[in-house]
Amino acid sequence: MRILILGGDGYLGWPTAMRFSARGHDVHVVDNELRRRAHEQAGTDSLTPIRRLPERVGAWRELTGREIGVTLGDLTDWDVVETVFDGFRPDAVVHYGEMPSAPYSMKDREHAVLTQSNNVIGTLHVLYAIRDLAPDAHLVKLGTMGEYGTPNIDIEEGFIEVRHNGRSDYLPFPKLPGSIYHLSKVHDSHNIHFACRVWGLRATDLHQGVVYGIRTEETALDDRLLTRFDYDDVFGTALNRFCLQAVIGHPLTVYGAGGQTRGYLNIEDTLRCIELAVMNPAQAGEYRVFNQFTQQYSVLQLAELVQKAGAEIGMDVTVHPIDNPRVEAEQHYYNAAHTKLLDLGLRPHLLDETLIESMFSTIERFKDRVIVDHILPKDRWRPIGRR
Amino acid sequence: MRILILGGDGYLGWPTAMRFSARGHDVHVVDNELRRRAHEQAGTDSLTPIRRLPERVGAWRELTGREIGVTLGDLTDWDVVETVFDGFRPDAVVHYGEMPSAPYSMKDREHAVLTQSNNVIGTLHVLYAIRDLAPDAHLVKLGTMGEYGTPNIDIEEGFIEVRHNGRSDYLPFPKLPGSIYHLSKVHDSHNIHFACRVWGLRATDLHQGVVYGIRTEETALDDRLLTRFDYDDVFGTALNRFCLQAVIGHPLTVYGAGGQTRGYLNIEDTLRCIELAVMNPAQAGEYRVFNQFTQQYSVLQLAELVQKAGAEIGMDVTVHPIDNPRVEAEQHYYNAAHTKLLDLGLRPHLLDETLIESMFSTIERFKDRVIVDHILPKDRWRPIGRR
Repeated sequence: MRILILGGDGYLGWPTAMRFSARGHDVHVVDNELRRRAHEQAGTDSLTPIRRLPERVGAWRELTGREIGVTLGDLTDWDVVETVFDGFRPDAVVHYGEMPSAPYSMKDREHAVLTQSNNVIGTLHVLYAIRDLAPDAHLVKLGTMGEYGTPNIDIEEGFIEVRHNGRSDYLPFPKLPGSIYHLSKVHDSHNIHFACRVWGLRATDLHQGVVYGIRTEETALDDRLLTRFDYDDVFGTALNRFCLQAVIGHPLTVYGAGGQTRGYLNIEDTLRCIELAVMNPAQAGEYRVFNQFTQQYSVLQLAELVQKAGAEIGMDVTVHPIDNPRVEAEQHYYNAAHTKLLDLGLRPHLLDETLIESMFSTIERFKDRVIVDHILPKDRWRPIGRR
Repeated sequence: MRILILGGDGYLGWPTAMRFSARGHDVHVVDNELRRRAHEQAGTDSLTPIRRLPERVGAWRELTGREIGVTLGDLTDWDVVETVFDGFRPDAVVHYGEMPSAPYSMKDREHAVLTQSNNVIGTLHVLYAIRDLAPDAHLVKLGTMGEYGTPNIDIEEGFIEVRHNGRSDYLPFPKLPGSIYHLSKVHDSHNIHFACRVWGLRATDLHQGVVYGIRTEETALDDRLLTRFDYDDVFGTALNRFCLQAVIGHPLTVYGAGGQTRGYLNIEDTLRCIELAVMNPAQAGEYRVFNQFTQQYSVLQLAELVQKAGAEIGMDVTVHPIDNPRVEAEQHYYNAAHTKLLDLGLRPHLLDETLIESMFSTIERFKDRVIVDHILPKDRWRPIGRR
């Protein structure tokens, strides 16, 4: 298959590109290096030293003999999108190409506007490109479980049967996103659903949980193929950051009461989910949502898991609750369906101490690169002094 | 009160500005004249000859002795928004300032992108301006009943109690918008809801039906105060267009089977609804939705009403179904709640033959200005040849 990976320089995009290439598919990646620039501006960096895309695909070619095409360009620039679609004519489009951070989007007005215009307009461009240049291509879009927020009912996969006043309909699941970034994904979901309903496009919207892990089969081949590992206040995520904090002897920073419960999955499972979605495409006109995670944890449970795994190998890991910079429920009901990818054949890598310890050892290799000043959160969801 | 009207040059914005000014409020209007430019580019125009804003407020001053402040500027330009909020410090912000047409948004990619970036980014700017420069101001935002689409259950006012697997929650009503424009309003609604939840802003999101009518108490004072009346394929709406077609002897163009049912209201009722919302503000942190319409009609029912009113005064009005350019259900269930504005004191002007006949006579005055070539739809929701 001809598979286009948008955001192919990212934490998940780059491993995904290698995985499909390894399976013998024809792969082309597009990236605007937005995250690399954001790191440079903030004085932060990936824990792992990562090469730029041209070097990455060069190393991949050298090691495997396989070609991955590269376009360095921005999805909000229609000329870039048109040129890529016109030249490559994909069968599947895996779309990671968005600004992926809630704290980034909440910094201030400029970051909010950049996030929503980048994500919404880039995705609109992709929808028009599919409609007009590759109408049978299957869009596999990365959404987020954060689109749902934390409703007081079970979360279903994208749609829910609503019974009301003696009638019923199967309707989009109501969304309560918790940041400007999460909102941008909700906007995308509505736009993509529309494109399927009205233009007959086919799309799978993967509402993904928080991904953890540092290693995939392909990144392990050579250090030039490493993927990024973010632990800073803007791009870092819960479990990855805790593992790094444990290794460098930093207290694990639990926000508030720590009862915030979310879905999590291993980076290897992300690759498998994407592959399952691509290999089992949606029908023409179909918009389907898969909740892409394997296990639910509260933040405090994760911290305790990391603490326990550390203790096993003689590390003294402390947990330190800090004032929550976000506006979110710290104790809430959470139960989200996630059977559709299992039904397609996903066999989860469940989280255990062995996995955490293997993360510890990779982090250990690069711990001299850690920038400690940029671990604690700086930006608050609600400006100080507001009710 | 200090009332800021965004989109104060529009069909509803200008009459709203005069109404609040007439009531003794301090009024400032902002407009980027987007619709005037769109008309110029398309070779279309308002039926009524309308003056530009500086002339309008001049005539208003001359006739009433009251001042209305004017800023010609774009809400997507932060400098404009900051200057206006910093200088005027509104108590209420009535936000009509968006690209208002579904057919415009569906023309092609450029119009789609312009619509969503104009509406979403403009409204984001307004939210940040309120947060940082006028935190107690009440946002009264014009949304649309079209955000809901046509679900197979009763439509509630913004939220619905969802019972599921033995639990329940009061959640945002699921949305099925039918155009890129309607999507932009759904995006706004999610962004505004977030701003209330997380920053404590106060907002009323008026999900308005289709407005008809040509005259308000204030526009009737002097022809220099007339508001626009659009009947063209892009900015025209059902009942207004039918009345014009009747007057010029054009068949009433019903799209498809004509069973498309929507909520409608008189322009005088729009002004009253806005006034009720402004005078009864939302609480800090509250996001409330009012469904703003007074009566439901199918397109065919409206055509028949106009035909009957025409017959009464000797006009020979024919109804001509045409191929539907939109992708929408032409026969569907529709029953939408609209009690919240009635509870605040709205006394509807119901649609009757007298009102239609009075629209006929105003249209008659200006019928030499009608551009007949631009009445029939040109743009299709689904490109020809697509499934």
